[in-house]
Amino acid sequence: MKQKITVLGPGSWGTALAQVLSENGHEVNLWGDNPAQIDEINTYHTNRHYLPDLKLPENIKGQKDLKTAVTDADAILLVVPTKAIRSVAKQLATIVENKPYIVHASKGLEQGSHKRISEVIDEEFPVEKRKGLVVLSGPSHAEEVAVHDITTITAASSDDEAAKYVQQTFMNGYLRIYTNNDVVGVETGAALKNIIAIGSGAIAGLGFGDNAKAAIMTRGLAEISRLGVAMGADPLTFSGLSGVGDLIVTCTSVHSRNWRAGNMLGKGQKLQDVVDNMGMVIEGVSTTKAAMELAEQLNVDMPITETIYRVLYEDKDIRQAAKDIMMRDGKIENEFS
Amino acid sequence: MKQKITVLGPGSWGTALAQVLSENGHEVNLWGDNPAQIDEINTYHTNRHYLPDLKLPENIKGQKDLKTAVTDADAILLVVPTKAIRSVAKQLATIVENKPYIVHASKGLEQGSHKRISEVIDEEFPVEKRKGLVVLSGPSHAEEVAVHDITTITAASSDDEAAKYVQQTFMNGYLRIYTNNDVVGVETGAALKNIIAIGSGAIAGLGFGDNAKAAIMTRGLAEISRLGVAMGADPLTFSGLSGVGDLIVTCTSVHSRNWRAGNMLGKGQKLQDVVDNMGMVIEGVSTTKAAMELAEQLNVDMPITETIYRVLYEDKDIRQAAKDIMMRDGKIENEFS
Repeated sequence: MKQKITVLGPGSWGTALAQVLSENGHEVNLWGDNPAQIDEINTYHTNRHYLPDLKLPENIKGQKDLKTAVTDADAILLVVPTKAIRSVAKQLATIVENKPYIVHASKGLEQGSHKRISEVIDEEFPVEKRKGLVVLSGPSHAEEVAVHDITTITAASSDDEAAKYVQQTFMNGYLRIYTNNDVVGVETGAALKNIIAIGSGAIAGLGFGDNAKAAIMTRGLAEISRLGVAMGADPLTFSGLSGVGDLIVTCTSVHSRNWRAGNMLGKGQKLQDVVDNMGMVIEGVSTTKAAMELAEQLNVDMPITETIYRVLYEDKDIRQAAKDIMMRDGKIENEFS
Repeated sequence: MKQKITVLGPGSWGTALAQVLSENGHEVNLWGDNPAQIDEINTYHTNRHYLPDLKLPENIKGQKDLKTAVTDADAILLVVPTKAIRSVAKQLATIVENKPYIVHASKGLEQGSHKRISEVIDEEFPVEKRKGLVVLSGPSHAEEVAVHDITTITAASSDDEAAKYVQQTFMNGYLRIYTNNDVVGVETGAALKNIIAIGSGAIAGLGFGDNAKAAIMTRGLAEISRLGVAMGADPLTFSGLSGVGDLIVTCTSVHSRNWRAGNMLGKGQKLQDVVDNMGMVIEGVSTTKAAMELAEQLNVDMPITETIYRVLYEDKDIRQAAKDIMMRDGKIENEFS
């Protein structure tokens, strides 16, 4: 049945998902806080800064005013940056009157509090004012979804009915949706994978081969799973689309910012130069710090994350760091708790 | 402590492991049934057909006679092709007198019976005549181990003491060993990953991108895990080195024979042409058939394997096959049993 859906955040992923929803026959509002960008969407049906080659369906309506954008929406999809989630959720709580579904497709942990995105939404926009909360996550370059390449993602919710609603609303011939009820696992996997992406880039930058790439990805997955389990996740979620799937896309594609940052570090550049050079936020750098603090609080062993932390924050020599991690005592493979 | 270890099978992986053991200070015999190759190893300390650039340690002794090779060995490592495992194990049972550890690093299922390699060894060379049986598996291009690149593998055994023995004997500054007690999971992961490698190559050959690559690898992993669980494996083993680790090396490296075969199929070649063209056994082709038969016996849903089977054995159009698999009903992600 035709739904009225509002997408908040016209970045590349928000825009690609707006296109999916429009092509699936839904009425789509796309809200953003940059008036020139919204004018471009309404006048030219393009969003050139984020998806240069895309011609958007004309019935996607750009919106500048949040209240207008969300009025009577059956579902609201948040794809804003992690740092904007709390303020947007707080505004929604004061505006929204019709109990919509809430979906988010953002990845990260809140700075300082290390809270997951759905925890932040729950705090600001309580369940009485909305239907179920669903997380969308998985291996999905927006550029590929925009051209209808085959893509699979996870819709995770503690509310089965809400997860199924998202599955039915978003799924089509090129975007396949799997439901999952482990919100904690899906959100922590999505956030923590960027640490391993930095390490994976570093290993390549240092000149190591495919065995070492597979090693850091697999052992990295084991330790982000351990931290996730300590935070309440099901370890099997990490072998799914939001875990290993997203890790594969991030660690085997040179398009990943975090991978590229690690690669430059591996080649001998200093962190500050890498950051200056990229001119963009390298999310994995702050996530590494957050993960170290969480690992200490929860008493979880994360040798790869700790090694990356020492390289990033304590100027440890990166080649020596790679050697040291190889020379630890032999371990048992499957320890997740 | 210095051990006397005999490696059976001087292919690239057997030779690289013989070098590891020699460098770790052990006495190493390397047995093979091609006399010219053994003469080359003893005279020139090379094995040019398999590892063209390698100069072997001179104390690796090539052996032509199996009995001479294994007499008084503390451990015997089998790295012979799957189809030779039964006959070699049978011979060992009649020759060996001193109860050595048995280790194998072969990957596959026995043709016809679909038995795992350690099952075949158990049948022919019973536990009374040997110490524990250990499986070595993981993401390991032999060429990279030979040049001391960082590599991590799993030593799996139902006998903890035997797994630890292998860990201590093989581990060094470039080869890191993790113990595991799930032999069924490690062996089935190693064998079944070749199916997904064919599919992954096909997806690339058809022109799909990184999202689709991650999709087939992740959903492929889910279904080989389901089959493995039905065969008695722990699902978490598939997110380890012998599962996702080996899958990453196999599916993201153009050096994999199975990936290349799938790639040619995706580009429109017929199976027989691909087989003729490669001039080598494409193990995943027979493994796909074995997995289909096992999935039917054990009542396991394997949509990707079934699709690859129809392309390989029933001449189904490969592009249509990829479309059909996308259009199935929405599924729940974490169903492993």
